Amino acid sequence: MPVGTQGTVKGLTPDQLRALGTQILLGNTYHLTLRPGDELIAELGGLHRFMGWEGPILTDSGGFQVFSLAQIRKVTDAGVSFRSHIDGSLLDLTPERAVRIQENLGSDIAMVLDECPSADAPEPVLREAMRRTILWAEACRNAHNRSDQALFAIVQGGTNPAWRRECAEPLLAMDFPGYALGGFSVGESAAAMQAALPASADLLPADKPRYLMGVGRPEDLLAGVAAGIDMFDCVMPTRNGRNASAFTADGPIRLRNACHRRDSGPVESGCPCYTCATFSRAYLHHLFQADEMLGPTLLSLHNVAYYLRLLADARRAIAERRFAPFHAGCLARWTRET
Amino acid sequence: MPVGTQGTVKGLTPDQLRALGTQILLGNTYHLTLRPGDELIAELGGLHRFMGWEGPILTDSGGFQVFSLAQIRKVTDAGVSFRSHIDGSLLDLTPERAVRIQENLGSDIAMVLDECPSADAPEPVLREAMRRTILWAEACRNAHNRSDQALFAIVQGGTNPAWRRECAEPLLAMDFPGYALGGFSVGESAAAMQAALPASADLLPADKPRYLMGVGRPEDLLAGVAAGIDMFDCVMPTRNGRNASAFTADGPIRLRNACHRRDSGPVESGCPCYTCATFSRAYLHHLFQADEMLGPTLLSLHNVAYYLRLLADARRAIAERRFAPFHAGCLARWTRET
Repeated sequence: MPVGTQGTVKGLTPDQLRALGTQILLGNTYHLTLRPGDELIAELGGLHRFMGWEGPILTDSGGFQVFSLAQIRKVTDAGVSFRSHIDGSLLDLTPERAVRIQENLGSDIAMVLDECPSADAPEPVLREAMRRTILWAEACRNAHNRSDQALFAIVQGGTNPAWRRECAEPLLAMDFPGYALGGFSVGESAAAMQAALPASADLLPADKPRYLMGVGRPEDLLAGVAAGIDMFDCVMPTRNGRNASAFTADGPIRLRNACHRRDSGPVESGCPCYTCATFSRAYLHHLFQADEMLGPTLLSLHNVAYYLRLLADARRAIAERRFAPFHAGCLARWTRET
Repeated sequence: MPVGTQGTVKGLTPDQLRALGTQILLGNTYHLTLRPGDELIAELGGLHRFMGWEGPILTDSGGFQVFSLAQIRKVTDAGVSFRSHIDGSLLDLTPERAVRIQENLGSDIAMVLDECPSADAPEPVLREAMRRTILWAEACRNAHNRSDQALFAIVQGGTNPAWRRECAEPLLAMDFPGYALGGFSVGESAAAMQAALPASADLLPADKPRYLMGVGRPEDLLAGVAAGIDMFDCVMPTRNGRNASAFTADGPIRLRNACHRRDSGPVESGCPCYTCATFSRAYLHHLFQADEMLGPTLLSLHNVAYYLRLLADARRAIAERRFAPFHAGCLARWTRET
């Protein structure tokens, strides 16, 4: 899922996203609640109409941004009080409010409010977050009314599979229509995450969507797919694109580098996206050197195309029972000296 | 002509420009010569291929930017020496070099090098600029080699029709395939420009393209059309779009204004462009409040659509022999209190 933090996937129109084959977008509850406000979006017909995206939308609960961006005042079993990073106003986010906001936004998939500590937090902190995540999941389920919106649960527990199991079991008993792994890629090394993924993903029902939140690099996505994950979201394609960094089958390249100045080849050879079909690396290099906004747009477009293609290739490899060699081949290409 | 200063119409892809019905773009010789360089663009197949635009391109001579952006060192009959605003390097722009650059860029229409003083400059300054403009036009014509590129002359002379005639006559004798009026919208009032336009345009052959350089606001364009002008270029659609200002049939609106916060209507009612067909004023307001780059892109797109539609409407009105009432109706709508 490309990430539409503030009601827009940065730099790309819904038409461009559709042409890329985007199946579903993520919207950020925290950002949209602070600005322009979920009530206003509801009044204007919901998030789909507001942002001009007719396909599915998943919204997070706002919890992750509250814990990472806002100045927290107090966390209790009832919810979390925080100051907005935009205007400093004092706000409460409770499980009931998180559900109400997402019902106002009208997303197709809503997420329960969870507490998301850093994976390297001390055991008591992680355990307290697990306890509250379970408590809040039940409160969210009870508050949830929209029959046209699925509510997914989130499993916490850091990189410890036993704790993941402790957190997952009561959530599984509540029978949510989908499950996410939260708290990965938050404080731990990529190796630690990849090591903990298989056991953690195995806890989740195979016949329901399994979603690894906020991940990640191409190698992390393939590790997730290998572990059985079905859904991902990450800002990397667009954020890296804005910073002149492009993903390619041979690993990332930086378009600002002088070696691209006279390069008449595409960003990624063989990529069918508009950027690669139309423009040279030299042109992208020029756009970034000249600080032209078309550079971020064109490279975000390519990077989203790259991510969607990587996962389409992974799905095809799974269907053709050759995912393991596909996975190994990708890793070998990305780590080869170029 | 939408303006592609640095090899890109800011924020818009060539595909979007084509979908808007853009017939021809303007490229800036001064900017492209300094970065990435005309030799590099030639090596990469010319400006069309470089920027992914298959339609016609007109390039200016670089003179206007040298006189307005660069630190001038010396102007002689041979040309102008200046320091680049990018890296401070010392450069020469001669008539021969201006032609050579535009031949390297491979534009469909090239412009002669001219000296463009402010319209309110003292008479000796204006007369010296006229003399040099005529001298340089001849030098450009002699230096010009590409048979697949038209070279247009530029008439100077400020707001004084007699001086415009003095400048035009020797240029007309040189039989260029098209003629431009330079130096308008440079220092004089809009009223002074509009007053001087008819007599100035009448000096130019009616059977060749007549181009009013760097103009302007919608009312200036219609004044130009009324005077017989065929071509315009202006950064206003894209610059104003980036600054949250939209052109509409009822005059300009500012999307940052709080009155648009809950407005579910389109930027311009009845406009068929992608922005107006897909998004509300409330959404555009939100994008600008949140400093999202999609705001500048979507509003630039609408404003270019508006300009192209205004001139398509003018052409239709001319063909149907009702341009005067069309013109009067536009002015009445734009000046009505709303």
